[in-house]
Amino acid sequence: MSAETVILDGNRVADAIKESLLSRVANMAEKGIVPCLATVLVGDDPASATYVRMKGNACKRLGIQSIRVVLPEHTTTEELIAAINKLNDDESVHGILLQHPVPKQIDERAAFEAISIDKDVDGVTTLGFAQNAFGFAEFPSCTPAAIIAILDYYQIPVEGKHAVVIGRSPILGKPVSLMLLNKNATVTTCHSKTANLADIVRLGDIVVAAVGKPQFVQGDWLKSGAIVLDAGYNPGNIGDVDYEACEKVASAITPVPAGVGPVTIATLLKHTVDAAEKVARK
Amino acid sequence: MSAETVILDGNRVADAIKESLLSRVANMAEKGIVPCLATVLVGDDPASATYVRMKGNACKRLGIQSIRVVLPEHTTTEELIAAINKLNDDESVHGILLQHPVPKQIDERAAFEAISIDKDVDGVTTLGFAQNAFGFAEFPSCTPAAIIAILDYYQIPVEGKHAVVIGRSPILGKPVSLMLLNKNATVTTCHSKTANLADIVRLGDIVVAAVGKPQFVQGDWLKSGAIVLDAGYNPGNIGDVDYEACEKVASAITPVPAGVGPVTIATLLKHTVDAAEKVARK
Repeated sequence: MSAETVILDGNRVADAIKESLLSRVANMAEKGIVPCLATVLVGDDPASATYVRMKGNACKRLGIQSIRVVLPEHTTTEELIAAINKLNDDESVHGILLQHPVPKQIDERAAFEAISIDKDVDGVTTLGFAQNAFGFAEFPSCTPAAIIAILDYYQIPVEGKHAVVIGRSPILGKPVSLMLLNKNATVTTCHSKTANLADIVRLGDIVVAAVGKPQFVQGDWLKSGAIVLDAGYNPGNIGDVDYEACEKVASAITPVPAGVGPVTIATLLKHTVDAAEKVARK
Repeated sequence: MSAETVILDGNRVADAIKESLLSRVANMAEKGIVPCLATVLVGDDPASATYVRMKGNACKRLGIQSIRVVLPEHTTTEELIAAINKLNDDESVHGILLQHPVPKQIDERAAFEAISIDKDVDGVTTLGFAQNAFGFAEFPSCTPAAIIAILDYYQIPVEGKHAVVIGRSPILGKPVSLMLLNKNATVTTCHSKTANLADIVRLGDIVVAAVGKPQFVQGDWLKSGAIVLDAGYNPGNIGDVDYEACEKVASAITPVPAGVGPVTIATLLKHTVDAAEKVARK
């Protein structure tokens, strides 16, 4: 490990976010309002079950209620949408999170679209996506928002920097590219069809790995002093970045675990509290 | 002019699009349906008035009806939205185009949002933007769609190429970046805060100028053999590209006028016919 490399500690950022929520949750409690996040899990993927459980536990520790809706593996799109609509109609529910991925027979886009924009705390609807793209979303997708929160927390300048995002999914690569663009970075978005990926990544002052392949980004792909944000969460808690190698070249890097992951969860809690406050103000 | 540079003739592409609409308009006419585009112009900007007139004339030549709604310079957001809602409710209107830019007192985003998604033939609503970002929009913004149509018409490969887009507006830079990304280009989006713009542009196998500054892109900013698409339409029919200089370096380039402009109008007509056919099928 080079002496200068800053480890971007996701737990520290997450704690700061959660800390800021405590008084807000307490204020609402005085009015008899308990922020409530509903998570919807379809099927029995063990990793997804773990994420949902982690989210539930994080809620609990903060005084946020969580409801877990678990649907069987063979659920249809219609059944899932019906379950989401029930949560849309439930006034005690402030945020709805559909755990990704869903089983193959389900039209995931249709299911995401069913979530009411007021409860779309993970920014998965087309409307939420576009509001974020234009810079006025209430609830940007949590992982992209977490990446921005880490940059903000560590006061890493973004304006005028070249950010390279590896990945273009609707809930990660695309929204984080647009968020970095809105923060005045020059943004390059790469993907599986990118030619000379290493050369492109080497342009990046800021590199976001959102590709879903374990230890994919190599140390010699990085410009010396790059800022590396690893949004990967592959089985066995392994990131998308070869941490050992990249950490030697980067000036700052998020570890996995304890990098982007905990900030994503804290952001989800924040959005749930935001949504509850909005209802409380009505 | 280098012998090999291909002039990407927008009139040719536009004619091919319009040609494909003739039988579709005729078929609808037999059923008593006339596709109808409503253009809304606020204020008396002479350039905007010219564009609106050009669009109306293009409709006429193709047997598409056009309605021109002209509102005074001092129109409020509420008044503009009321006018748009009237067009939303009018069953004989299939497409609505709000001419950009609107006077400063108007909340342009709110006005765009008022357009019904079924009639949003210029893809200006957040919902239309996001559907386009995810690759399933019926009506992507016309200028970005025109740029893609030119690439398609001239069979210019996009997959794996590095596309550099200069500009990040909600109706041009951002959507064209996402459309090129969906066509498997590696996409870099630049803007006024980009450092070393010339070096970034020089990475581009494909360069899209969407910056709104006359003759901004210089010949020595281009990689030899780059494909140049100039979406600029500055006063005096001047593009965003220094054509004389860029044409010597590029392997293909759109002129201004007769480049992206006519294809944008043809795309608007196509979307209006698409929208009318959708109603006819109901």
